[in-house]
Amino acid sequence: MILTLKTGVTEKEINEIKNKVKELGYSPEISKGLDKTLVLVKGERAIISRDIFESFEIVESITPISEPYKLVSRKWKKKSIINVGGVKIGSGNIVFMAGPCSVESLENTMEIAETVKAAGATILRGGAFKPRTSPYSFQGLGEEGLKYLRKAADKTGLKVITEAMNIEQLKLVVQYADIVQLGARNMQNFELLKACGYVDKPILLKRGFSNTIKEFLMSAEYIASKGNTDIILCERGIRTFSDYVRFTLDISALPVLKKLTHLPIVVDPSHPAGNRDYVEPLALAAAAAGADGLIIEVHPNPQKASSDGAQTVYPDQFKEIVRKANAIRELLK
Amino acid sequence: MILTLKTGVTEKEINEIKNKVKELGYSPEISKGLDKTLVLVKGERAIISRDIFESFEIVESITPISEPYKLVSRKWKKKSIINVGGVKIGSGNIVFMAGPCSVESLENTMEIAETVKAAGATILRGGAFKPRTSPYSFQGLGEEGLKYLRKAADKTGLKVITEAMNIEQLKLVVQYADIVQLGARNMQNFELLKACGYVDKPILLKRGFSNTIKEFLMSAEYIASKGNTDIILCERGIRTFSDYVRFTLDISALPVLKKLTHLPIVVDPSHPAGNRDYVEPLALAAAAAGADGLIIEVHPNPQKASSDGAQTVYPDQFKEIVRKANAIRELLK
Amino acid sequence: MILTLKTGVTEKEINEIKNKVKELGYSPEISKGLDKTLVLVKGERAIISRDIFESFEIVESITPISEPYKLVSRKWKKKSIINVGGVKIGSGNIVFMAGPCSVESLENTMEIAETVKAAGATILRGGAFKPRTSPYSFQGLGEEGLKYLRKAADKTGLKVITEAMNIEQLKLVVQYADIVQLGARNMQNFELLKACGYVDKPILLKRGFSNTIKEFLMSAEYIASKGNTDIILCERGIRTFSDYVRFTLDISALPVLKKLTHLPIVVDPSHPAGNRDYVEPLALAAAAAGADGLIIEVHPNPQKASSDGAQTVYPDQFKEIVRKANAIRELLK
Amino acid sequence: MILTLKTGVTEKEINEIKNKVKELGYSPEISKGLDKTLVLVKGERAIISRDIFESFEIVESITPISEPYKLVSRKWKKKSIINVGGVKIGSGNIVFMAGPCSVESLENTMEIAETVKAAGATILRGGAFKPRTSPYSFQGLGEEGLKYLRKAADKTGLKVITEAMNIEQLKLVVQYADIVQLGARNMQNFELLKACGYVDKPILLKRGFSNTIKEFLMSAEYIASKGNTDIILCERGIRTFSDYVRFTLDISALPVLKKLTHLPIVVDPSHPAGNRDYVEPLALAAAAAGADGLIIEVHPNPQKASSDGAQTVYPDQFKEIVRKANAIRELLK
Repeated sequence: MILTLKTGVTEKEINEIKNKVKELGYSPEISKGLDKTLVLVKGERAIISRDIFESFEIVESITPISEPYKLVSRKWKKKSIINVGGVKIGSGNIVFMAGPCSVESLENTMEIAETVKAAGATILRGGAFKPRTSPYSFQGLGEEGLKYLRKAADKTGLKVITEAMNIEQLKLVVQYADIVQLGARNMQNFELLKACGYVDKPILLKRGFSNTIKEFLMSAEYIASKGNTDIILCERGIRTFSDYVRFTLDISALPVLKKLTHLPIVVDPSHPAGNRDYVEPLALAAAAAGADGLIIEVHPNPQKASSDGAQTVYPDQFKEIVRKANAIRELLK
Repeated sequence: MILTLKTGVTEKEINEIKNKVKELGYSPEISKGLDKTLVLVKGERAIISRDIFESFEIVESITPISEPYKLVSRKWKKKSIINVGGVKIGSGNIVFMAGPCSVESLENTMEIAETVKAAGATILRGGAFKPRTSPYSFQGLGEEGLKYLRKAADKTGLKVITEAMNIEQLKLVVQYADIVQLGARNMQNFELLKACGYVDKPILLKRGFSNTIKEFLMSAEYIASKGNTDIILCERGIRTFSDYVRFTLDISALPVLKKLTHLPIVVDPSHPAGNRDYVEPLALAAAAAGADGLIIEVHPNPQKASSDGAQTVYPDQFKEIVRKANAIRELLK
Repeated sequence: MILTLKTGVTEKEINEIKNKVKELGYSPEISKGLDKTLVLVKGERAIISRDIFESFEIVESITPISEPYKLVSRKWKKKSIINVGGVKIGSGNIVFMAGPCSVESLENTMEIAETVKAAGATILRGGAFKPRTSPYSFQGLGEEGLKYLRKAADKTGLKVITEAMNIEQLKLVVQYADIVQLGARNMQNFELLKACGYVDKPILLKRGFSNTIKEFLMSAEYIASKGNTDIILCERGIRTFSDYVRFTLDISALPVLKKLTHLPIVVDPSHPAGNRDYVEPLALAAAAAGADGLIIEVHPNPQKASSDGAQTVYPDQFKEIVRKANAIRELLK
Repeated sequence: MILTLKTGVTEKEINEIKNKVKELGYSPEISKGLDKTLVLVKGERAIISRDIFESFEIVESITPISEPYKLVSRKWKKKSIINVGGVKIGSGNIVFMAGPCSVESLENTMEIAETVKAAGATILRGGAFKPRTSPYSFQGLGEEGLKYLRKAADKTGLKVITEAMNIEQLKLVVQYADIVQLGARNMQNFELLKACGYVDKPILLKRGFSNTIKEFLMSAEYIASKGNTDIILCERGIRTFSDYVRFTLDISALPVLKKLTHLPIVVDPSHPAGNRDYVEPLALAAAAAGADGLIIEVHPNPQKASSDGAQTVYPDQFKEIVRKANAIRELLK
């Protein structure tokens, strides 16, 4: 961490800063340029004390040198492969997670499970607890939905991923699901992140639609810091001024995250698209840019889906996406 | 709600849509332009069924006519004044909420309470549970901190506002605080919103840093829909490309919200500033644009604050802000 | 175009609006819902009069039904193929445009031309006039640079694309180049757009880094409205809060533009990457999402490049990009 | 400027960087932390060579220490007051610039000039050359419009500000206007900026709606570097995800710019508002936050204005804004 001091700082003030650096257990090094005085604060985790130095009147700005995360960093480990009962995420192949936005009935869940399995999916997705912008919208089937997912998965040999929105739901979800999903709106729900750190199931952490890459990794670090390092990151679009699609898929997050972290990265092309016509091109772009998996909303009759029908693809469209994405991955290996 | 249908739609398809509209209890009206066919879906709450129509292949786009919120709308009520044990928010005066970012000790909380009271504050703020981006940062004193706040407030005659980040904390916070704060990162924590709807304390709801005005009001609607309509909105800066300040204070949210809702609107100038030098100009801008209150981080010794020291003002600075903001408000009455 | 009128509007006011609609040559249709009165303004180009209706006190909001562009719309034409002296852009194959950021010397330009040609490029790019954020940075070689580009292209059989930043430069550029590039910062330089409409060379129009898809197409319409419809669109990243890369490549712009316009779409992966390590994944994502071309900065010795060295790839990296992008395209045909 | 080198860099590579630093005339200083090696590049204008160091493979990131602008910096001068024929901008008072969006006729311009003068304006604004998103919209009266402005101003004793969009228009505008306006879309039209540097009239430079504060000051530096330091900065709203207003007024730009530059700062509340109801609160917020001037669209009959009618205030509204803004300024002096 480098502290840039304000012009006109006195020797006395520089000494105060130096003492504070030492008091916190780091080592200071002073460098005087033509114009500015810099203080290098040496210490592997010095950045954690950023707040303290920011509050000093004479500190003009602070430059981090080391990243504030550790367990999720590639410095710690080169590559993680998450094994979900035999389905390996991060191994070089693309893992397909597919299913309806919301779980609707056992019959319907069974039908979709068989369809997506036949098309190439290995993990069944579906919401039993739904985060809805409006209090008047359908809020999900709850535990009943979890049971349907489990049954449909067991019958077809798929694994289950589903979302928990709070600690109570988390306790239920871990009983039925193989992967716990944390939604974009909960990426900085720090209490929920900590609770996920004590769970013995992999966590798929969706990036908040307005969170930086650094905040994304800090949230993963929250989970890892409590003991659970089976974390799958998921890019699902960010909020920008662009208004033709629901969210702007940040395709560059893929190579950037691959450089910074050992965790696998999955892409959700459905939510940024907001329209089923755009799901395939976004999914294929993600495959070409190195995604470890794709999580896609599929329904045999989107007009009858309880939520998100506009962005839900038909089973035939999903089949095409699987075929093409796999071919791209083979080609790039 | 207006459905714009795709070019080349058939009579049969138009009839299917008409039937769906009727089935849902609304009334359809067809209008054919030179180029496009429009379906007007009449019904006060028709917008709630938006999802269903979006999933139809032949629907090109949907235009809402009525807003999706109701209880928080100005159509429902002209103006709400929230009475917090005698402190009236929304009455035309500016209410000042001030205190440290985090509660640190009883002694320190007492000292700050007396200081901000003397400067003109009527509500004491301070965090006992802290949402921190890093798992390695100070996480707050918990219930002990709540006790300090209550004691300091009771001794000085101030009211207390403090944040709850989950349902467990909410149960504790309502025992000690006069206003419950929901932080920006929890603006779409729908389970927590619902729980706040059953509480008999006013809720200060901070706008998520990437949420639209409509989403903000929908989150307030969540609380109101469960019975608690004592809601105070708080604008605290949005995330944009601009990088000299921590967040961009959306000053236009004030007149926009005043047009759409009857709820009072408070501004937090500290978090967008990220630097104490910018707190006063942002606070005065908010006063001039019609804010019902200001919530400001104040500490006698920001260098020793446990968090957010850089944006915390000195007591003398706070006193000046109160004096000037009140003078602006008097002038504009 | 639909006008939503304010609640409480009188019959007299509705008649004033109706008369204005007729006066402008459109046909009005009134629809009264439970809550709001709507005026449908029928007429193919009615949206052009949007401004006029917006200024009426009683108009609450306006919803466009038809798009404001015409010549560049897919309603006008299904697909354009731009023929640049035999190089066809928009034909289904990916066209590669490559070269240095700035033209530096004849020798160097010759060397790069041969290199990129050997790797698979058919068009040589390079800046003779450089838009630089700082007045103290290298500003380009001017006409001398144009001559080097032409010579290098003629010798190798490549075509030339280079940027013009104003009308004087445009007059020079058309004498030497095969395609005129308009940079992102000039996307709404309406005088320059009009001038390009009178030129008999194809125009590559880069999307402004903060412009919507609609504004992008309106700028293309400016050129087309003056007679030149040989327009190539170029997505080059948008400005968002995300700070690990220089700009966020808006990959969804590809399928969205393909739905709205008949013009070919090229992607520049170099500028959004800002770092050569990210150029390949972004280029391949663009290939998978349907780009008609890629424009990439290549230099044998980026450390010695006069500008943009950080994002400039080595010739070997470029060769790999060409090979993989072509393979992806073949596979998806 | 500080270069952070990649982990694992060799002594040989460090020496190459050191030599490059010396070759460019700066002085290098090496600092080895626990984890990273840093190179401090000392030299007042070292940041200008940023590009060169970015292209080195072993450079991981670069941190500027000094700002890249000089003539517009507060290090150079404390405060500039621009004297426009007796109207002083930057003196502590608020200067009001008002008039129609577009000049329409001599009669109409005369009427508005008298109205805004009576209300307290000292400068008449109005567009003769209009930047319009659509090629089919009204494009302005051209030189005829400039004549009307001049006549109206001379008769009423006002000064004139009007926009030039290219170098040809600039030549005309300087003959008629007292201040040349450069619009937001031309903030990075570097050729036009340079041309303004040779003009002997003050320049009002509007911030591009997606430009950072640093880019804004670099564009001012372009003008100043050619000799014209009579520059007035204008904040007019930035593009964000927020969609209830046309642009988000970046109110924090005022205190930030006041810290960085000696140039006066004017605010345009009309364009971000996009709706006349929001102009007053935004104008007063700007007055409270320290604006040196306000530029506002005023028209006696906005429904008949040729452009921007929705955001144009009535003369009575303008009068109220002047009265209140002046009162706020007096109070804060």
